[in-house]
Amino acid sequence: MFVPDGTIERWLQEDIGHHDVNNEVPGTTAGRLVAKEDGVVAGVDAAVAVFEYLGLQVDRRVESGDRIEAGAVALSVSGAASAMLRAERVAVNIAGHASGIATMTRHAVDRAREVNNDVSVAGTRKTTPSLRGIEKRAIDAGGGDTHRLDLSHMVLVKENHIAELGLEAAVQRFSERASFATKIEVEVEQPEQGRQAAEAGADIVLFDNLSPAEIEHGVEMLPDGVLSEASGGITLDNVREYAATGVDVVSMGALTHSSPALDYSFRTE
Amino acid sequence: MFVPDGTIERWLQEDIGHHDVNNEVPGTTAGRLVAKEDGVVAGVDAAVAVFEYLGLQVDRRVESGDRIEAGAVALSVSGAASAMLRAERVAVNIAGHASGIATMTRHAVDRAREVNNDVSVAGTRKTTPSLRGIEKRAIDAGGGDTHRLDLSHMVLVKENHIAELGLEAAVQRFSERASFATKIEVEVEQPEQGRQAAEAGADIVLFDNLSPAEIEHGVEMLPDGVLSEASGGITLDNVREYAATGVDVVSMGALTHSSPALDYSFRTE
Amino acid sequence: MFVPDGTIERWLQEDIGHHDVNNEVPGTTAGRLVAKEDGVVAGVDAAVAVFEYLGLQVDRRVESGDRIEAGAVALSVSGAASAMLRAERVAVNIAGHASGIATMTRHAVDRAREVNNDVSVAGTRKTTPSLRGIEKRAIDAGGGDTHRLDLSHMVLVKENHIAELGLEAAVQRFSERASFATKIEVEVEQPEQGRQAAEAGADIVLFDNLSPAEIEHGVEMLPDGVLSEASGGITLDNVREYAATGVDVVSMGALTHSSPALDYSFRTE
Amino acid sequence: MFVPDGTIERWLQEDIGHHDVNNEVPGTTAGRLVAKEDGVVAGVDAAVAVFEYLGLQVDRRVESGDRIEAGAVALSVSGAASAMLRAERVAVNIAGHASGIATMTRHAVDRAREVNNDVSVAGTRKTTPSLRGIEKRAIDAGGGDTHRLDLSHMVLVKENHIAELGLEAAVQRFSERASFATKIEVEVEQPEQGRQAAEAGADIVLFDNLSPAEIEHGVEMLPDGVLSEASGGITLDNVREYAATGVDVVSMGALTHSSPALDYSFRTE
Amino acid sequence: MFVPDGTIERWLQEDIGHHDVNNEVPGTTAGRLVAKEDGVVAGVDAAVAVFEYLGLQVDRRVESGDRIEAGAVALSVSGAASAMLRAERVAVNIAGHASGIATMTRHAVDRAREVNNDVSVAGTRKTTPSLRGIEKRAIDAGGGDTHRLDLSHMVLVKENHIAELGLEAAVQRFSERASFATKIEVEVEQPEQGRQAAEAGADIVLFDNLSPAEIEHGVEMLPDGVLSEASGGITLDNVREYAATGVDVVSMGALTHSSPALDYSFRTE
Amino acid sequence: MFVPDGTIERWLQEDIGHHDVNNEVPGTTAGRLVAKEDGVVAGVDAAVAVFEYLGLQVDRRVESGDRIEAGAVALSVSGAASAMLRAERVAVNIAGHASGIATMTRHAVDRAREVNNDVSVAGTRKTTPSLRGIEKRAIDAGGGDTHRLDLSHMVLVKENHIAELGLEAAVQRFSERASFATKIEVEVEQPEQGRQAAEAGADIVLFDNLSPAEIEHGVEMLPDGVLSEASGGITLDNVREYAATGVDVVSMGALTHSSPALDYSFRTE
Repeated sequence: MFVPDGTIERWLQEDIGHHDVNNEVPGTTAGRLVAKEDGVVAGVDAAVAVFEYLGLQVDRRVESGDRIEAGAVALSVSGAASAMLRAERVAVNIAGHASGIATMTRHAVDRAREVNNDVSVAGTRKTTPSLRGIEKRAIDAGGGDTHRLDLSHMVLVKENHIAELGLEAAVQRFSERASFATKIEVEVEQPEQGRQAAEAGADIVLFDNLSPAEIEHGVEMLPDGVLSEASGGITLDNVREYAATGVDVVSMGALTHSSPALDYSFRTE
Repeated sequence: MFVPDGTIERWLQEDIGHHDVNNEVPGTTAGRLVAKEDGVVAGVDAAVAVFEYLGLQVDRRVESGDRIEAGAVALSVSGAASAMLRAERVAVNIAGHASGIATMTRHAVDRAREVNNDVSVAGTRKTTPSLRGIEKRAIDAGGGDTHRLDLSHMVLVKENHIAELGLEAAVQRFSERASFATKIEVEVEQPEQGRQAAEAGADIVLFDNLSPAEIEHGVEMLPDGVLSEASGGITLDNVREYAATGVDVVSMGALTHSSPALDYSFRTE
Repeated sequence: MFVPDGTIERWLQEDIGHHDVNNEVPGTTAGRLVAKEDGVVAGVDAAVAVFEYLGLQVDRRVESGDRIEAGAVALSVSGAASAMLRAERVAVNIAGHASGIATMTRHAVDRAREVNNDVSVAGTRKTTPSLRGIEKRAIDAGGGDTHRLDLSHMVLVKENHIAELGLEAAVQRFSERASFATKIEVEVEQPEQGRQAAEAGADIVLFDNLSPAEIEHGVEMLPDGVLSEASGGITLDNVREYAATGVDVVSMGALTHSSPALDYSFRTE
Repeated sequence: MFVPDGTIERWLQEDIGHHDVNNEVPGTTAGRLVAKEDGVVAGVDAAVAVFEYLGLQVDRRVESGDRIEAGAVALSVSGAASAMLRAERVAVNIAGHASGIATMTRHAVDRAREVNNDVSVAGTRKTTPSLRGIEKRAIDAGGGDTHRLDLSHMVLVKENHIAELGLEAAVQRFSERASFATKIEVEVEQPEQGRQAAEAGADIVLFDNLSPAEIEHGVEMLPDGVLSEASGGITLDNVREYAATGVDVVSMGALTHSSPALDYSFRTE
Repeated sequence: MFVPDGTIERWLQEDIGHHDVNNEVPGTTAGRLVAKEDGVVAGVDAAVAVFEYLGLQVDRRVESGDRIEAGAVALSVSGAASAMLRAERVAVNIAGHASGIATMTRHAVDRAREVNNDVSVAGTRKTTPSLRGIEKRAIDAGGGDTHRLDLSHMVLVKENHIAELGLEAAVQRFSERASFATKIEVEVEQPEQGRQAAEAGADIVLFDNLSPAEIEHGVEMLPDGVLSEASGGITLDNVREYAATGVDVVSMGALTHSSPALDYSFRTE
Repeated sequence: MFVPDGTIERWLQEDIGHHDVNNEVPGTTAGRLVAKEDGVVAGVDAAVAVFEYLGLQVDRRVESGDRIEAGAVALSVSGAASAMLRAERVAVNIAGHASGIATMTRHAVDRAREVNNDVSVAGTRKTTPSLRGIEKRAIDAGGGDTHRLDLSHMVLVKENHIAELGLEAAVQRFSERASFATKIEVEVEQPEQGRQAAEAGADIVLFDNLSPAEIEHGVEMLPDGVLSEASGGITLDNVREYAATGVDVVSMGALTHSSPALDYSFRTE
């Protein structure tokens, strides 16, 4: 996927400023982006784009989704020293941020799959403003499910819609308005409502802020062909319990809003 | 500080997409941005700007830097329901992200000050691309020091400069090139080099990747009027040890690259 | 839905240029956007945004989706004469373009529904570059279905995928890769393949470039719960024949790439 | 002429979205942009720019203004399959849109020239917002005259100016204000006013919404060296009648607001 | 004329940076933009737009083109102190720059008119990149002629065209290619060529780098109805000599590339 | 330093417009950017970026900061003739503007150093909106000091802060708020206040609008290690007098707001 040059320019300008005498150095050099801890790689397309925007040559050693070990080289870069010194911090920042998300996602998926081999672990719309695409692709790199990419991607019928119109009428209303290309998910607050939502036409039922036991009950009652999702307070610590309910998808906002960065360093020769 | 409308537009567009039928609702409503855990507020200017861009009225209850308790209202918003539903996720995302940084910064400052009342806790250039200003102001809101805002703000003489030219010549070179308005910091890898750097004209000496004992030794040898900074592997867990060395500044990349978001929710009536 | 100010600025700048002496007139005035032929309204949000960007007051008389008759007033505008003269052409252009799409869509839907009350008429990705959202919402205003909003909205398994992997494996591959939030449509070139695609897991089967008779045959063989779409060479003249096949959706690229504009004029007092 | 990368990025982003799994395919491929009907080529510079932005190699077989026959290849493209699949729809959309304008223009010019070998057929400012330059150049490619490129290009004295100031004073006023580099055209509503406008200093007289007979009368009365233009309700069906009046220019808004796209397909190997 | 918000944002961001603690002050205040020397006002629309973008109230005391005396107030501003302190430098910079151009233009016009009451003094395309419109309007404010606004505004047949094709063929070629809305100017290097250019169809003849005597000779030979322009080395010191030749237009690149700023100060209470 | 492509695009678009028939020429050519007067080079990076954006090859003969003599070649360019004709004016404009600043700066520095070998000549924030970075780097190219790059770079305590809080408290307030990376300068209006400011913690004392004699007095009283700056009404004519006071820095707004352009021409073969 491409990161627009307009975006790369904004990143570089905010880090360089009007007059960087610090890196006004002659000559060419070589450098390597090295992982300092184990993790899963993401954001390398963006990091490569940063280096290439400033005219540097990049030899890519890893792809998004690869596991990387501490000490391994992700990218090998060569070219003008001044360009490399100006690009490296931005490249490390975006690679570290995205790889942190991929790594946390991988952990969550691995834990959830210990108890439910078919479960998906999904992100949410709780992403960092201006990085939606990069963060969603980082979730994918970590083996997770991107979930709704934006408000136009899927309809989510929420409790306030149901409170106003009744569950059946609310689902009906959005079925009429939404494109045939768009799925409809219905958020329920009680296990029994899941079946009701499915019968009203939901493609997916979201059990929000329910206990694992309640979710398990709700999932059991769903007809075939309707997917189920659990959300609300799911963390690395309890993801197994939610996955064990038999739900199809568990979603975790923390993947994008609270993942620590993966530690990379950039070493010039 | 202002967040440009061009930025707000990018945030909204990436979350709304081309055709959001989900939130095409009539009427007006009111809502509140509520903290779900204790923390320190930041990013509210940006959140307010998001709501106002879509024509909503905002009553601001907190300012950047305020402590907020779980259950407290940060913003009270009113206006068109469709606008509010489209603004809320973006507003929560930016407020949560920035407040997470402010909160972690506050914790770090509080711990460091337990042992050294004059120490500053600073961020780094390890920020999320496209959010430099917002994240730096979040550090300030948390009682931290923003450190270098960009490469043009301060000169940092690094080990490779010293390796090439020798410490004295390297400092000399940048003193000549940098504006009188710009400070010069010198990164050293041995405690004794600190004094040498100071004598060569450094405004600040950075002890990078040294142990607390080494840093303490380095700081003691510095002449009056020269500031000292410690960096490298400093976390919430060990920040007291570094602060106790008597260093003027401890800097932590984790403040911006690994702070979990502060949990906010937006509740419509 | 909002049209970003950055977009409005681009539209105005390209029409005004560097120095418009023609409209450098004093005083205030009033004007009306009037339909010169019958049609369906779309793009008024964008037209209103153009006027408001230049500080004019707008009284909106119609909403997207309304039918409008020749002579009827869509918008009533007041304010600085120079601003009105600079805004009017851009506002007419966007309203006429979008309303033309809505009007052609309405015609297509009306014809198709004469023979099949449940059929949808959908647009395609054949939109005018830079106007995706406005054109998709114009289709919606005309009673049509927006179809895929962008490549990330829905997966379309195409003949080349099938040629390479076989139908079943191709569907399987994308089912694994796509989010649970994303539908999967499979394009087939023979009626019988439709059922096969459905059994492989397709949410929707697209019968592309088949005759109405072939499509009817294909649709009959589909299992319940799988949607069908017809595309390829469908026009206002033959849309009834395709609709009569019982297909769920007929899609027409012409809605966005070949609709004539609806004729509006702007009259100042 | 160049199409800015910033424009190409907007086009691609709106069609690709945040996470396009559909076209995440390995390997390289080749493809051809092929006309499916006869017409006149325009917009190929923009289409080439789209492919090249994503790193593809393009072999250009046609230039703007060339006639193309059904089945002929306009562009031959090679490179990464994923890039080609993401670029092709945008490239086809812009080439089809611009070529549709060039083709309709060519038809209008050919018809008009049957009866008046010196007549020009011109576009108007009724263009699609954000595509002014591409559409104007498409008119040129079709053998038409671009007319006013923007409000700053030429002064058009309109009926409201004349109503307010009188014809002579109105022309005088704008002659004083406009640059010597700028022509002045005067719109008249009666044939006799044409001569009056010419004597007042008009470079061009626009006969707006007059019958062919009236226009012929008006044109005859004009002094040498003053150009004449006819506009208002001119279509492919009646363009000969207007051209036959001896007018220098006939202008048609439909060229840009209502031309159907030229049908192209993009075929990968 | 409007200055896009996107432009205002760029100006403010480049002057404010990521974290301006200097102007983080509470309360409201009032201020005045005051001329410190006599001159002609321009750029006030842009200055007003800067203040208004940051939410300040502006009372405008002057309009573009007004003469202003040292000590006179151009704008009166009120609102948040922090916003005013952040806006003032940018506002002064743009007003001073544009007013400097208007003032120098006024001087040149006044001198030229002493000897030739009908002469125009025009700018060129030698403007500051990114300020074309503002600088052209500043020339207009100073009583000058904006000349070619951009390459698309007027055709200028240059010596290299003539060298290649011959004068007559070159003019003919561009007459065919250019729109009827576009004037054609021909640059000549010998006085006699002026008449030849006029007969070939030039609307304007440019005598470039000729002496006043040569220009006078060239102008005399021109037929009626063809304008003449002189350029090349014309300054405030010699503009009278060129104006005295009877030429219609004298153009001076220095108006935009070398005007000193008009001195304004912004005084807060 | 890089100039973002987004900036280059804006410059080119504003000069080319929608349809430049003038430079629609076939073939390739070569050209040279030649100085027409002696001066100091700046802005060549930007000029090169303009040519390269349009696909031209550039051979750079000079670097920023080099002295250039009348007749010398700065850049040698080759490639498509149409691209060269469209790039040249923009390239000349930016190189001329920046080199004009560098040249005036060089003159000022040379004069000041005649009487004080250690003095710096600095610019101010009085730059042309949208060209901050290019102008600051031009000052550097001329041997000057860039001074404050933006409001976030350095704190300047001004008279209104002092009036409100008292000098000591004002300095104290900003010392607490500003980052350790940021210098604090204090503006004083009386010579004696300089020492007071230094004792309060100022890194730099600015003597604003004082006579050379007063400044000399103020400088003498300053303690070691505190820098001094003089500003207000300093020109090429009187810069020696100010430099002779022993002050460390003299700053001149005229460097950026009133430098005449350096005269370059672009000559094609």
